[in-house]
Amino acid sequence: MNSGDPDLNRAAPIIAAVRQRAPMVHCVSATVSMSIVADGLLAAGVRPMMTETAQEAPVVTSVADALSVNFGTLSTDAMDGIPQTVKAARKAGHPWVLDPTAIGVAPIRTAMARDLVASAPSVVRGNASEILALLGAGGGRGADTSDSPDTARRAAEEIAARTHGTVAVSGAVDLLVDGSSPGHVVRIQRGDPMLTRVTGTGCLLGALTAACAVVSHPFDAAVAATIWLNVAGERAAARATGPGSFRVELLDALDHVGSEAQTLAERGQDS
Amino acid sequence: MNSGDPDLNRAAPIIAAVRQRAPMVHCVSATVSMSIVADGLLAAGVRPMMTETAQEAPVVTSVADALSVNFGTLSTDAMDGIPQTVKAARKAGHPWVLDPTAIGVAPIRTAMARDLVASAPSVVRGNASEILALLGAGGGRGADTSDSPDTARRAAEEIAARTHGTVAVSGAVDLLVDGSSPGHVVRIQRGDPMLTRVTGTGCLLGALTAACAVVSHPFDAAVAATIWLNVAGERAAARATGPGSFRVELLDALDHVGSEAQTLAERGQDS
Amino acid sequence: MNSGDPDLNRAAPIIAAVRQRAPMVHCVSATVSMSIVADGLLAAGVRPMMTETAQEAPVVTSVADALSVNFGTLSTDAMDGIPQTVKAARKAGHPWVLDPTAIGVAPIRTAMARDLVASAPSVVRGNASEILALLGAGGGRGADTSDSPDTARRAAEEIAARTHGTVAVSGAVDLLVDGSSPGHVVRIQRGDPMLTRVTGTGCLLGALTAACAVVSHPFDAAVAATIWLNVAGERAAARATGPGSFRVELLDALDHVGSEAQTLAERGQDS
Repeated sequence: MNSGDPDLNRAAPIIAAVRQRAPMVHCVSATVSMSIVADGLLAAGVRPMMTETAQEAPVVTSVADALSVNFGTLSTDAMDGIPQTVKAARKAGHPWVLDPTAIGVAPIRTAMARDLVASAPSVVRGNASEILALLGAGGGRGADTSDSPDTARRAAEEIAARTHGTVAVSGAVDLLVDGSSPGHVVRIQRGDPMLTRVTGTGCLLGALTAACAVVSHPFDAAVAATIWLNVAGERAAARATGPGSFRVELLDALDHVGSEAQTLAERGQDS
Repeated sequence: MNSGDPDLNRAAPIIAAVRQRAPMVHCVSATVSMSIVADGLLAAGVRPMMTETAQEAPVVTSVADALSVNFGTLSTDAMDGIPQTVKAARKAGHPWVLDPTAIGVAPIRTAMARDLVASAPSVVRGNASEILALLGAGGGRGADTSDSPDTARRAAEEIAARTHGTVAVSGAVDLLVDGSSPGHVVRIQRGDPMLTRVTGTGCLLGALTAACAVVSHPFDAAVAATIWLNVAGERAAARATGPGSFRVELLDALDHVGSEAQTLAERGQDS
Repeated sequence: MNSGDPDLNRAAPIIAAVRQRAPMVHCVSATVSMSIVADGLLAAGVRPMMTETAQEAPVVTSVADALSVNFGTLSTDAMDGIPQTVKAARKAGHPWVLDPTAIGVAPIRTAMARDLVASAPSVVRGNASEILALLGAGGGRGADTSDSPDTARRAAEEIAARTHGTVAVSGAVDLLVDGSSPGHVVRIQRGDPMLTRVTGTGCLLGALTAACAVVSHPFDAAVAATIWLNVAGERAAARATGPGSFRVELLDALDHVGSEAQTLAERGQDS
């Protein structure tokens, strides 16, 4: 028994496991996208936790199940807190996702992202220009990108080789590279351009990936989260009349895609 | 003449008075929930004001009508600003609400919340695990809770006895303890589980309580705000198709519940 | 060929040019309104960029096309970063908009706003009480105002004379004063009271003005942005059932008003 959607069938067991476990994901996230990240995680059945100071974040992350670090607006608090928080998450053995938003634009965040790559993120997620900038191979002009994911394939593979982790390059076609298995690459062509008309959908993908990595291998987590968000985006686009209603429908769809998947998985266990 | 809903009848005069007065509520609030707190207050007919630095917040609070302090993401700015802001609000004679979000998780915010209890908050609002942690009587694992409000009854009564204020414990059943009248306890079983699927509804309840405390005794304010938000939540849940649309419907309903109540109160004055 | 709406016809070429150019607008914006500013710009076809620290913001603004400075919640980071960011934007020759939110309430932001006026903002945008406070001519009690725009006409003209820029006073009737052409004043009576029931619509107007100033004279930009947002507000109000749904419809309408205008402009080029 299946949904008739091979991508969704692939993601379904992980989506179901996330809903079952309801993992707590600590997000050090952009101020501008914090609301969609938190509401998106709640819609997906995940418990979000947000705090970023050096005094609190390392302690908080140790009681969570995973960490998602998104540079976003990068406050002074976040700059101070991120390195120790990553250290605490690693010490606790938690999966962690690095989302080096808008690197290449300001020297300080580019240097910080490159340092963090040495801390072996379970998943690095970014658009093509961010992944290129992480290797010093491109410029980048903020969070949007004109580069297609495949232009960053070599950079993604090099980062994956260094971290032995997963690198997920977002775009019209998402490219996922598995550093734990050389040559293992997956392309996912799902979603809707409306996902780029709402702030923070990329940040949400990073946080959702961290949630999925609590219940699966990081590469499978990145694949499942990419499918989850993009299928939700397709359904939302079919119902929305503009970017405002798309955001609302996206949150509803994140809840529904998960619920259907859970039902499918449960059926799978019965059959 | 009444709405046929005893809870709403009880809250109606205070809701009407809030709409009439349009109080200005200064919120030192979590970054992640700031938007729903501000939009929720505006929907309720309240004028929100947000700023948290030690340089500005104490001055700003003095021109407002009430203060709501929510730990939330607890930036360095907020850590510095909160103590002086509370002092300024007390000096101005304003009611103030303490919402010790997620205490028990990080030592720094637990200590800070315990210090603030000595500044006699008009209302302390939290879930059971936060109220327990405030007395050192429990752990707590973030903003969500598995403890039912009644497990925190003794802790709530002790805090209420110390502050001579109100303690409001949120949950499926809300428990409200009146420190100005020993033994005076009210339970409210309203609302919908969807209220836990959207970030910041607890923060909004704290801020709405502060608004109601401008026009009524803090205990009555806590009761009215709890009814206001939870009745709005019930109506929103009846119309929503998921957590995204629930958030939209909740804001609409906060506006409507208030308007009906105002009409009821006006009718009450005529009859 | 035209839309039958003289205001919209006036704004249409600028709206079309914004959509065509998709300018990048760097926003140093209130935390509480950051989400509606970013989503509103995206809906309008503009690329938002948010960051505020002194370490990053001056570098980031130089790769953008315009700068919008909104005091909003005024964090320590923003207080440190704004002066250097404005300097960098001016050095790059970018138009920049000053939105002195809530000045008059706290001495620190009033002094800061007055200093910034000396840096010749392309457009100063505020409500009547903010514009009066900028000249030391009034009090102000936060972001809302009871003063009508015309009470601030003299203050607006004096600021416009000093900056040789545009001063836009928001209210039920918007008053726009052109400092580059003495005596040139435009009044726009569009919009809907619902625009005051959602946080951050004023901040969004400032940022949208910055976007329009990339493709036109700052005064025409302020006129076009005022029409764009207010026509969207009218359409949203006609469809909304409360402040929650109004916010959603407003974002949808910002997208639609732009698209229609583009079509009109394209038709205009053909005819």
